[in-house]
Amino acid sequence: MSKGPKGNAVVGQSGGPTAVINASLVGVIEEAKRHPEIKNLYGAIHAVAGIGKDHFIDLKKVSAAVLKAVAASPSAALGSSRDKPDPESCAQILDVFKKRDIRYFFYIGGNDSANTANILKTMADQAGYELHAFHVPKTIDNDLLVTDHCPGYGSAATFVALALIGDDLDNRALPGVKIDVIMGRNAGFLTAACALGRKRDDDGPHLLYFPERPISLDKFLADVDSVCKKLGRCVIAVSEGIRDSDGVFWAEKLAEGVETDAHGNIQLSGTGALADFLAGQVKDKLKINRVRADTFGYLQRSFPGTQSAVDVREARQCGKEAVKLAMKEDSGSVAIRRLHNKSKYAVELFRTELCNVAEKTRSMPAEFTNAEGNGVTDAFIEYASPLIGKLPKTEYLGSYPKV
Amino acid sequence: MSKGPKGNAVVGQSGGPTAVINASLVGVIEEAKRHPEIKNLYGAIHAVAGIGKDHFIDLKKVSAAVLKAVAASPSAALGSSRDKPDPESCAQILDVFKKRDIRYFFYIGGNDSANTANILKTMADQAGYELHAFHVPKTIDNDLLVTDHCPGYGSAATFVALALIGDDLDNRALPGVKIDVIMGRNAGFLTAACALGRKRDDDGPHLLYFPERPISLDKFLADVDSVCKKLGRCVIAVSEGIRDSDGVFWAEKLAEGVETDAHGNIQLSGTGALADFLAGQVKDKLKINRVRADTFGYLQRSFPGTQSAVDVREARQCGKEAVKLAMKEDSGSVAIRRLHNKSKYAVELFRTELCNVAEKTRSMPAEFTNAEGNGVTDAFIEYASPLIGKLPKTEYLGSYPKV
Repeated sequence: MSKGPKGNAVVGQSGGPTAVINASLVGVIEEAKRHPEIKNLYGAIHAVAGIGKDHFIDLKKVSAAVLKAVAASPSAALGSSRDKPDPESCAQILDVFKKRDIRYFFYIGGNDSANTANILKTMADQAGYELHAFHVPKTIDNDLLVTDHCPGYGSAATFVALALIGDDLDNRALPGVKIDVIMGRNAGFLTAACALGRKRDDDGPHLLYFPERPISLDKFLADVDSVCKKLGRCVIAVSEGIRDSDGVFWAEKLAEGVETDAHGNIQLSGTGALADFLAGQVKDKLKINRVRADTFGYLQRSFPGTQSAVDVREARQCGKEAVKLAMKEDSGSVAIRRLHNKSKYAVELFRTELCNVAEKTRSMPAEFTNAEGNGVTDAFIEYASPLIGKLPKTEYLGSYPKV
Repeated sequence: MSKGPKGNAVVGQSGGPTAVINASLVGVIEEAKRHPEIKNLYGAIHAVAGIGKDHFIDLKKVSAAVLKAVAASPSAALGSSRDKPDPESCAQILDVFKKRDIRYFFYIGGNDSANTANILKTMADQAGYELHAFHVPKTIDNDLLVTDHCPGYGSAATFVALALIGDDLDNRALPGVKIDVIMGRNAGFLTAACALGRKRDDDGPHLLYFPERPISLDKFLADVDSVCKKLGRCVIAVSEGIRDSDGVFWAEKLAEGVETDAHGNIQLSGTGALADFLAGQVKDKLKINRVRADTFGYLQRSFPGTQSAVDVREARQCGKEAVKLAMKEDSGSVAIRRLHNKSKYAVELFRTELCNVAEKTRSMPAEFTNAEGNGVTDAFIEYASPLIGKLPKTEYLGSYPKV
């Protein structure tokens, strides 16, 4: 392959922001500068929505100091979009690519984004237009196929682990039932991460519920009752995507006129309805006075200062890898492989086909949840612990010997 | 005053936990060890509830390493309580004090705690029992009288300032209306702190609403509409204690069968009802599609790792000061005075009477909110900025020049 300028490149950020999607962006920018095949590097403002409107910025002109701050900033510095381009807008995007001689397309996002990259690549092929289309994985849900884990997950997992450490201490101080609703539509990885900060035998969360393990209201209440009888309190982490024993989202059963996005996903976040419903049930059915519920909401993906160092590093590497791969391959999605032959945590990156990631979601493996479907196993703790940031040592004195 | 052992001391932590109430506890412990007048130092488990049940631990036996971790831990390490002791339980507490020869009582908490200390001191006086009763201030609401500000506020303010930095970046990436409901029943100090991270002209929160400034739904919607027309998005920080133009809590109007605590306070936290109501109104009345609402809930007071260094230092000093004062005075509450003759932020501590703090709440001064009642003034920013921790520098690229 020639080393002269071959064309221009576009990078975009799509779907829900994370704490490290900007680290991936900076990875793409840094690596792109090293390859003379890439003449101009354009940032697509608000992803495909911006490409269709020909709204780009020149990323090679952004200073090193600004890029450093970008890499440390949560959210998506280019702006994001949840638009799913229809055939018409895909054709429009391809026209923009042709007009601007764009030969490399880097799209940082989840499975919907991999799908968009795949559609554009297919259309370009059909039109006989040379395009290198690469997907850089990103999601706090950790629900992409092929990859061992997803950039964005480790930092969100750090946030919820920290939150539950504090929340459990709060619940020790003022005992009762505390319910925390955690993001994760189809996969319980983030909810499971709430358990990563547990140290003492009676540390919460004492119960965890996942989309993969449907649970009836009766079983939920029986679980809570049992923990309360044993400990006099109960901290619960519930995925926003929990399903009733008939497989239907609890949130869907509760909501009137639920909102769906362009990809047909029901809005589960940004509402406290599920948390309030569960709290009401515990109050009414178990006759427990002090019941509180919080829905952690967007803080989980956008709170600054809880980036996991491993997550930042890998997110950046994934961005770089996409550019490297694009120099010799037509398309693909970057994936992470964990190296189990190493004595300590190590990974390598590899390419997988866009179609292997596009539109598919991965569930938590069965061995990560306990038999009852209300907790995590050691296998999960071993899987997730290397991905998160440092957690603080805390102390509670209430169980010291009486005098 | 003699320097020999004079009796034993009790310290308790009351009301809602904070990020630094344990720093105050450690301050009390450290200072108590320096005074031979205090023979044993007992920690009351779950505050007055534990004293009544004679449930104490020996705080002089807790190792330095554990105390270090305690000071860095959120929540209340001794356990807390929201009980308001009635005359009967006050008599019971006094019996325990007499039985255990407790001559010093240190109570870390808000205005209800100052009141409890005051009641116990008065009863002791009436019984001719020598008791030194001191209140150490604590509240994330920052609503105690006399003191310039309250330990606990600076750290909670740091949390919400960080949260809004991230949330505003998130809202830039995926524009729409975002409503964040912030703790603060009667005082808007914490909601106001949401503005402390703003750097760019168009940074959110764009609108802030406080308990001190009643607002009608019509005015609220008109404000949101106006910001959306100008910026294409709107981030709003709303106090859980906002009131309608008739002075009634909005949350109270919405809730069916609201819960009250022993002090007669309505439960405003731990429910998403207000946030969901406001989001629904914006959606329906302004026909805006993407409206999200989060209720930050207990994360504001218990999230680990966002302690403000100034707040930790002052919380500890307040604990120490209470012990020092108790060596020469009968009772009091520790207060903070800001020294305005210094070129940089400095404070001194002083004693005020318990009755000056007990059962009273302070509102935000009028000069901290703007004329419209939907934002903060520079006077507030100057007041609050020295109290919080370091905020990160962030970057957003969406407004870079088009190419």
